[in-house]
Amino acid sequence: MARTNGKRSRKRGLSPGTLMHVGEKKVEKTRITVIDYDEKNFLEEEVEALEECFPFRDTSTVTWINVDGVHDPSVIERLGAYFNLHPLILEDIMTTSQRPKMEDLGDSIYIVLRMVEYDEKKRQITTEQMSVVMGPNYVLSFQETPGDSFDPVRDRIRKAKGRIRKLGPDYLAYALIDSVVDNYFLVLERLGEKIEGLEESLVTEPKRELLHEIHGLKREMIFLRKSVWPLREVLNGLQHAESALIKETTGIFFRDVYDHTIQVMDTVETFRDMLSGMLETYLSSISNRMNEVMKVLTIIATIFIPLSFVAGVYGMNFKFMPELEWRWGYFLVVGFMVLAGLGMVVYFKKKKWM
Amino acid sequence: MARTNGKRSRKRGLSPGTLMHVGEKKVEKTRITVIDYDEKNFLEEEVEALEECFPFRDTSTVTWINVDGVHDPSVIERLGAYFNLHPLILEDIMTTSQRPKMEDLGDSIYIVLRMVEYDEKKRQITTEQMSVVMGPNYVLSFQETPGDSFDPVRDRIRKAKGRIRKLGPDYLAYALIDSVVDNYFLVLERLGEKIEGLEESLVTEPKRELLHEIHGLKREMIFLRKSVWPLREVLNGLQHAESALIKETTGIFFRDVYDHTIQVMDTVETFRDMLSGMLETYLSSISNRMNEVMKVLTIIATIFIPLSFVAGVYGMNFKFMPELEWRWGYFLVVGFMVLAGLGMVVYFKKKKWM
Amino acid sequence: MARTNGKRSRKRGLSPGTLMHVGEKKVEKTRITVIDYDEKNFLEEEVEALEECFPFRDTSTVTWINVDGVHDPSVIERLGAYFNLHPLILEDIMTTSQRPKMEDLGDSIYIVLRMVEYDEKKRQITTEQMSVVMGPNYVLSFQETPGDSFDPVRDRIRKAKGRIRKLGPDYLAYALIDSVVDNYFLVLERLGEKIEGLEESLVTEPKRELLHEIHGLKREMIFLRKSVWPLREVLNGLQHAESALIKETTGIFFRDVYDHTIQVMDTVETFRDMLSGMLETYLSSISNRMNEVMKVLTIIATIFIPLSFVAGVYGMNFKFMPELEWRWGYFLVVGFMVLAGLGMVVYFKKKKWM
Amino acid sequence: MARTNGKRSRKRGLSPGTLMHVGEKKVEKTRITVIDYDEKNFLEEEVEALEECFPFRDTSTVTWINVDGVHDPSVIERLGAYFNLHPLILEDIMTTSQRPKMEDLGDSIYIVLRMVEYDEKKRQITTEQMSVVMGPNYVLSFQETPGDSFDPVRDRIRKAKGRIRKLGPDYLAYALIDSVVDNYFLVLERLGEKIEGLEESLVTEPKRELLHEIHGLKREMIFLRKSVWPLREVLNGLQHAESALIKETTGIFFRDVYDHTIQVMDTVETFRDMLSGMLETYLSSISNRMNEVMKVLTIIATIFIPLSFVAGVYGMNFKFMPELEWRWGYFLVVGFMVLAGLGMVVYFKKKKWM
Amino acid sequence: MARTNGKRSRKRGLSPGTLMHVGEKKVEKTRITVIDYDEKNFLEEEVEALEECFPFRDTSTVTWINVDGVHDPSVIERLGAYFNLHPLILEDIMTTSQRPKMEDLGDSIYIVLRMVEYDEKKRQITTEQMSVVMGPNYVLSFQETPGDSFDPVRDRIRKAKGRIRKLGPDYLAYALIDSVVDNYFLVLERLGEKIEGLEESLVTEPKRELLHEIHGLKREMIFLRKSVWPLREVLNGLQHAESALIKETTGIFFRDVYDHTIQVMDTVETFRDMLSGMLETYLSSISNRMNEVMKVLTIIATIFIPLSFVAGVYGMNFKFMPELEWRWGYFLVVGFMVLAGLGMVVYFKKKKWM
Repeated sequence: MARTNGKRSRKRGLSPGTLMHVGEKKVEKTRITVIDYDEKNFLEEEVEALEECFPFRDTSTVTWINVDGVHDPSVIERLGAYFNLHPLILEDIMTTSQRPKMEDLGDSIYIVLRMVEYDEKKRQITTEQMSVVMGPNYVLSFQETPGDSFDPVRDRIRKAKGRIRKLGPDYLAYALIDSVVDNYFLVLERLGEKIEGLEESLVTEPKRELLHEIHGLKREMIFLRKSVWPLREVLNGLQHAESALIKETTGIFFRDVYDHTIQVMDTVETFRDMLSGMLETYLSSISNRMNEVMKVLTIIATIFIPLSFVAGVYGMNFKFMPELEWRWGYFLVVGFMVLAGLGMVVYFKKKKWM
Repeated sequence: MARTNGKRSRKRGLSPGTLMHVGEKKVEKTRITVIDYDEKNFLEEEVEALEECFPFRDTSTVTWINVDGVHDPSVIERLGAYFNLHPLILEDIMTTSQRPKMEDLGDSIYIVLRMVEYDEKKRQITTEQMSVVMGPNYVLSFQETPGDSFDPVRDRIRKAKGRIRKLGPDYLAYALIDSVVDNYFLVLERLGEKIEGLEESLVTEPKRELLHEIHGLKREMIFLRKSVWPLREVLNGLQHAESALIKETTGIFFRDVYDHTIQVMDTVETFRDMLSGMLETYLSSISNRMNEVMKVLTIIATIFIPLSFVAGVYGMNFKFMPELEWRWGYFLVVGFMVLAGLGMVVYFKKKKWM
Repeated sequence: MARTNGKRSRKRGLSPGTLMHVGEKKVEKTRITVIDYDEKNFLEEEVEALEECFPFRDTSTVTWINVDGVHDPSVIERLGAYFNLHPLILEDIMTTSQRPKMEDLGDSIYIVLRMVEYDEKKRQITTEQMSVVMGPNYVLSFQETPGDSFDPVRDRIRKAKGRIRKLGPDYLAYALIDSVVDNYFLVLERLGEKIEGLEESLVTEPKRELLHEIHGLKREMIFLRKSVWPLREVLNGLQHAESALIKETTGIFFRDVYDHTIQVMDTVETFRDMLSGMLETYLSSISNRMNEVMKVLTIIATIFIPLSFVAGVYGMNFKFMPELEWRWGYFLVVGFMVLAGLGMVVYFKKKKWM
Repeated sequence: MARTNGKRSRKRGLSPGTLMHVGEKKVEKTRITVIDYDEKNFLEEEVEALEECFPFRDTSTVTWINVDGVHDPSVIERLGAYFNLHPLILEDIMTTSQRPKMEDLGDSIYIVLRMVEYDEKKRQITTEQMSVVMGPNYVLSFQETPGDSFDPVRDRIRKAKGRIRKLGPDYLAYALIDSVVDNYFLVLERLGEKIEGLEESLVTEPKRELLHEIHGLKREMIFLRKSVWPLREVLNGLQHAESALIKETTGIFFRDVYDHTIQVMDTVETFRDMLSGMLETYLSSISNRMNEVMKVLTIIATIFIPLSFVAGVYGMNFKFMPELEWRWGYFLVVGFMVLAGLGMVVYFKKKKWM
Repeated sequence: MARTNGKRSRKRGLSPGTLMHVGEKKVEKTRITVIDYDEKNFLEEEVEALEECFPFRDTSTVTWINVDGVHDPSVIERLGAYFNLHPLILEDIMTTSQRPKMEDLGDSIYIVLRMVEYDEKKRQITTEQMSVVMGPNYVLSFQETPGDSFDPVRDRIRKAKGRIRKLGPDYLAYALIDSVVDNYFLVLERLGEKIEGLEESLVTEPKRELLHEIHGLKREMIFLRKSVWPLREVLNGLQHAESALIKETTGIFFRDVYDHTIQVMDTVETFRDMLSGMLETYLSSISNRMNEVMKVLTIIATIFIPLSFVAGVYGMNFKFMPELEWRWGYFLVVGFMVLAGLGMVVYFKKKKWM
């Protein structure tokens, strides 16, 4: 349940905007790295004291400050104060069960996203909150753990691959969001393979364990869907944002990543439909099998119970039972039994039970 | 059913706006407290006579008048007359089965909310109606019972914590609404734990009682959802209200609490989906188990009924039954029985019934 | 089915606007009463000839003409001609299976509503069509039967209770509509009690008759919902109507009754959800019980059928059956039977079938 | 399936606008009738050669040209050329599986509708495509078969009944559409009676055939709904069309027929809900009955199988079975059997199985 | 699963707009054909080197460049560079799992569609991505395989059939899209026949294999629907596009093909409803049959098990069993058995089980 709701109750009664970490503490120490670049210059460093990264705010180059670990109020507070962020935004950064959303703050845009990952061991999707603040010439990003999702972006900046070094902080923000959305595709591919595997097992050998797996995957879909829907809204918002921070040329990129979220949603819905279909298939094959079992039972019982009765009758010990004395009595009765049995079989064949 | 519909029938035929308490009477005596503050001054008192709080209306400080108990028409009427509230609003305050709604009255804004609580004993959610009237420099709040939900707000005002003493009545109204919405999170956490517990029990030991608990929780979800949907509308209305009463700087706070209601709704929907999934899991495991029971019955009956028939045949008392005289007849028949039984077992194994 | 569709086929091929009563004729004679009032004057009379009420049209006082019985084309036609109503409106008044709707005719507003009542004997909701025409200084109302739903309104006018005598025809129309919507609450309270009763019976003694009652209530909900949805549209239309006929001060009253229809709709939806939940509960408890029955059968059959077979074997009449001669044969066999039976019981206990 | 999709594949690869009949050919020869009228004049004739009706286009009177049979490209083409219709419109007229739609062509309005009929023999709804082109002073109508649905309209024109002779082609178009919508009511009444009948049978004698009838009716509802939805859109379009062809005074008539389509839709949805409810009722009564059957089986088996076992034990042929020798052995055993049987009965009564 | 999601993971971490083929490589070599025409001139050629087709860009005639095979980045890149396409568009062209979409690029319009085909062998729908770029006087089309879907269009251009040679590139783009939408009708006809066949089999002989076929068709419907919904959006976008590239006269054609997509969607939804209905029918007939089987079993068991017990009693070997000595004992018992059996039959008849 930890997945659906952070322990907000601890914050109850506090003044809104009070900074306090809500969620699981995933790293020991906050780690801050700064990348500062323009088309010609590039600088990357890990800062010890937070204040080291402040001077970059006022340079004309693009500055990307990445913070791993959001549990330390003092760090978040000082950073927020320097970059002029509203206390509620800082509170959102530290409350790691946020729903994806976008807030246009005028001089900066605040975006919360959820980074998904498929945990093979627990067989469930885990998510991590990622906050991005995009300013006129800087981007701040906040992660709960020092994941490697942003490494490709870093690499592209370092090696000046593509157009990233030529464009501004809006393109950098786009690149970060794009790498988050790409992770959804990875998770979906992984789940897709699982569904495909299940589907085959269902045809070849419908076992009971499959049921639990189908239900488990359905649950993951509920969960995934819950985080994709607001993600789509965020990207729709960014696409239509009338903010001076997003240049017109970057618009097409945001449109592109918006299309990706729609594709993710489509796939999630299709998977849901497929899983429901599989469940239906499974249940109706169970019901079919039950029917078959019942038929076997009925055939056996219907043939042999009456015959046993006949045998029982002639097993009675009455003194005066004329048939018992007949020379061919036994053979007559056995003959009658065989005929009756065959008659039953014919009847069942006609009724298509055999 | 008391939860879904107050006894409005008592009011039938009365002129609209006639004041009459509709609902359960929860307190004996109406209790009125006044808090009056600005950045520097603070005054808190419980008034005996209603009229004592009237002078505060015209001071420049922020005045918060809290009324516990809404069953007394005379109190509500005099207060309404003094603060110039429409009779229909007064009627709404006294009819404690209102749907959350917001009404912009020009010189004040009227808001109805429902405060939720989870009653552990009855195992159901109880709600209480809370009305808030926000004026240019006062806030009136009406509760059915003197609950402690507003205590943290009072405390923040008393101790001048956060920004509450620096801001106006719109921020106070926000703080009250925020504490109502926070309660939804508490209830959801409580229900989430229950669902988590149920889910585990479902895996380890699917008992029949679980079914009733799942159905019970589903019902609570229907109920919760019914009060969250209009709450969201209220907050959306407040967020977009073009009222001079709500200052621009307070806008971000209303947006924040609006985001919280969306998160509440999301969680309610997720819980509903999870409970439906659990019900499906339970029912299909029941069906699986039934299938297993049927198989055992069928196997036993199919093996032994025909063999019993054979035994019955040789238990008949006919005079002339040649097999009975044979030296090895008994052993032949028993041998045949063993073979037939084993054949059945092999057949069932092949059919994967065993 | 009479409830879902009047016999419109009788009208097929007639020119639109041709007056002809469609529906059940519920009263013998059309009865017309006139109430004429302003703040100071009051006059109430039952008119014999329709024309008697015509002079009131041009007085400055508010005139309310109520017509009980809509089956007589001549009455409707003359009234319509005098008050300048479009033939299609007259046709709608006489076709008593109309969907609630509102039509702004410029110099008057035409409203169709359905008055609901719960018929205890037939155990179903019955509805009656009520048409209201609101003009600049008159209100015409048309009912199928002389019901007593409007009596409280009449009474308030007679006794000058509340503000009704001070306000115009728009407030009168509101009062009539409000009394129609109030009836929905009465019906819902009645149904709510039934649902509550059913729910309790379901827990204490899930009998088969409950199923029919649940299905019956579900059907009533379908029916109720069908008439509430358009009612809500009508009131939404009235609330936003830009007609000079509705004064601004009356707006808040229409908004209030609109809120009531939303509450009715909410309750209908909640009842539907609750009934669906009850049906699910009932069906799963049936399925549970079936499972239990099957287990008892399986346990009995699985224990005794094999044992009977053993007894059958030693009941065979072969000449040479060594065991039969043994001194302790009988006791050995009975002992084996007891042990086998106990073994089975242990097995079932382990499988949690007992 | 012919009902859901015409054989469009035959047209594949042809240039759009190529005239070719798609659908079943229902009449041999195209039949064209002309009615030309104004308030004073009236002329009706069946034309042999298409060109005979051309002169009417330019008269000031209203001209209604009705074409029965749309399979002949040459007729449609020449008519289209003379009345200046777009080739795509002509193609639509000849493709008789069109979805109802409206196209405002500037100098004329093109409307496709589906005329429904209930075929008692096939027990299904059949539809026929009807196209209407409304011009400044003419109306063209195209039917697949010379049905009698328009006869009442013709009659009203002939006899100058109602207002039809006084008004223009827009009123004529309305009258035609109205007669199409009226047919939906007829079909719904027919289906309503069937549903009512089924519902009664379901209570008195739930037979297996009912299931097929319910499913059949559900299918008809799917089909009916599919053609009502777009019909509603068409009428909504007409109602809001800003075309000079539709006079303001005719507006109220289109609004009226729009209300009728909403009523049709409502009824279709209600019928669907009722049929679903009936299916649920049927299935749960089947399940109830199964439960009852199982109980009888279990009671019988549980009482007699153990008793038979006891009888089997004393039917064994061991030499040394002391009980057999006892004087009262038989009576003791029979007594025990009776007691055990009664005990079982008491147990089942207590468990409410009997 | 290949159908639901291309292997996007291979592209992870690359700069957006990096050209790389994502999807199955379906042809060996890219094949490029050029058709250049106006009302009088016509030229068709297959180019060897891509650059051969560049000069056509600047001619005043309409140029259609068709590319079969999108796996070669160099081809797509050079073409894109010459026709000034955004790198993201080129990326979309090469990623063959795109959702249908439209992008107005100002000087050209980019459209992605999915061409459907029904693969009889695999019994599933296959889709292929088709991209169309419409410029001021050229159309570029990209297919994965050199299919023959566009042959009719080519033919119409070659033979100057219809109006295609007289109109511009917007009409050509329409013609291509129209031929894609036509394919949906073909696939639906094929599926419709299958559904019709299944429906008949369901009535005549409800076998277990039908279940798999119904589930299979339902799955195809999920899949088809997934590609029709965005197709409809694309065409809606084109219809309302305010681009100078689409002439007003072509508008009606886009509206027409939009109507076709709605018809496709309607049919898909109807098929889904029909398949759900068939599944319900199948499952309830299975349940009915199970009920019947259970009844036979119960009747047989209920008649013969008690009678067998009676026979068992008189088969006991007690020394003192007075009845056994009676002269008519045997006949009395047999007579009682016959009567009891008949009594049971009468009871079952009365209960309608036989």
